[in-house]
Amino acid sequence: MRSVTAAGNERDFVQSLERGFAVLLAFDEERTNPTLTELATATNLSRPAVRRLLLTLQRMGYVTSDGPRWSLTPRVLTIGQHYTATRAMIDLAHPHLLRLAETTGESASLAELDGNEAVYVARVPVRRIMSINVAVGTRLPAHATSMGRVLLAWAGPERITRYLEEAPLRSYTARTVTDPAELRTALSAVRDAGLSIVDGELEEGLLSASAPVRDRTGAVVAALASSTAAGRLAPERLRKETVPVLLETAAAISADLGYDPRPVPVKRDGFY
Amino acid sequence: MRSVTAAGNERDFVQSLERGFAVLLAFDEERTNPTLTELATATNLSRPAVRRLLLTLQRMGYVTSDGPRWSLTPRVLTIGQHYTATRAMIDLAHPHLLRLAETTGESASLAELDGNEAVYVARVPVRRIMSINVAVGTRLPAHATSMGRVLLAWAGPERITRYLEEAPLRSYTARTVTDPAELRTALSAVRDAGLSIVDGELEEGLLSASAPVRDRTGAVVAALASSTAAGRLAPERLRKETVPVLLETAAAISADLGYDPRPVPVKRDGFY
Repeated sequence: MRSVTAAGNERDFVQSLERGFAVLLAFDEERTNPTLTELATATNLSRPAVRRLLLTLQRMGYVTSDGPRWSLTPRVLTIGQHYTATRAMIDLAHPHLLRLAETTGESASLAELDGNEAVYVARVPVRRIMSINVAVGTRLPAHATSMGRVLLAWAGPERITRYLEEAPLRSYTARTVTDPAELRTALSAVRDAGLSIVDGELEEGLLSASAPVRDRTGAVVAALASSTAAGRLAPERLRKETVPVLLETAAAISADLGYDPRPVPVKRDGFY
Repeated sequence: MRSVTAAGNERDFVQSLERGFAVLLAFDEERTNPTLTELATATNLSRPAVRRLLLTLQRMGYVTSDGPRWSLTPRVLTIGQHYTATRAMIDLAHPHLLRLAETTGESASLAELDGNEAVYVARVPVRRIMSINVAVGTRLPAHATSMGRVLLAWAGPERITRYLEEAPLRSYTARTVTDPAELRTALSAVRDAGLSIVDGELEEGLLSASAPVRDRTGAVVAALASSTAAGRLAPERLRKETVPVLLETAAAISADLGYDPRPVPVKRDGFY
């Protein structure tokens, strides 16, 4: 039983669409080539329902079958392309990301806030420095990453309060900030500094710096990050060498988005 | 009216799932922030139907509204991640792609055949050399790209015949091979050479070389490509410098996938 939501009542929702996505997303590392029965178990749907959804997804080209086993097709990747296509910022940021990666010799990424997570929307990898795969679409906990802290820092006090209420401040390493008050202090420091540096809070040895990207209204719409392995580039070197290029690149992307960093003139004594 | 297909009859399909995807995919470069009416026009669906689908997609977190305008959220990118997660090859190929890009100083890509197109499933960009965005999920015509030619060349004679029947051999530049007989000859040459080099057939000045990646059964499951601007690296230099590294990298990925290149011993006179 689903409750009535603020957006509309139950008859406003299309159950089979939700179920179709549930079947599509049931394919993962643990279920790379599931059978119909395995998908039914994973989604809590009946076998006939899963069969109809699979046949529909097959007709659309998103899944294929080999005997009793089903698998996703690369067409699934095309769905994400539609997001990229609708966000001019991503296309526009791409040459800047390439230049940042070339100048620093480190991976460059762009992330947006979605729910309580930071999502990579563009990335130029240089070396593999994380044990997890950090391709576009990867979601990371906002509190433990420099990108997430930048996105939260400028999301406004209400958003920060909601985040602290909703998101579990999970500990990933001994250094992860898990105390709400401590995170608030860290976010305030990010706003003061105009950037975030996080050292080993998501994964031991992962060091990253992020700066805000602003649109023409001045709103922070993305975080630009440069990530490295802590052993390779000590935090002090990151501050001296990477941070200036990072800030410059974030400013260049913001300028391309129409952001004018000049402060709005304050009227004083009748003069501007 | 839809016809009965080999996979099942009409009641085996879930119309609202297809419609939900149609709404999701109606967001694109031309419709980045459409209204409900614009989406109804684009999908040929009624406004009430589109409204219910949008509210459902909103509840799932894939779309969001700002006044009368709707937009996709970065969560859409996560769907593609499920494809990557189910294909061990992509994860395994990643360090090889990074090394190829670092050794050659050129963009490295991995593509699979989907329908009649080559789809990027992994990519390490180095410079932007194409006017189109070639992120993961981008689909390119198989006949005009070195990746597509490799994938077609080893797809088998029936698949090649079907491709020539179904796919329009569209001309993109003055150099694009558009004659079916000429494409067959080119594919045969690719099999003989063990690689494909395509110079300016999709876009003027775009030069790329691709080699097949094989799984443990010996089947070609992907194409590995190194792409450059023709002005920067003449075809002769590409052949001498890039191709050996490309072939070596494709062999290394194939070996990681369990492919053993030693020929199966032929029984002769009772001896192996």
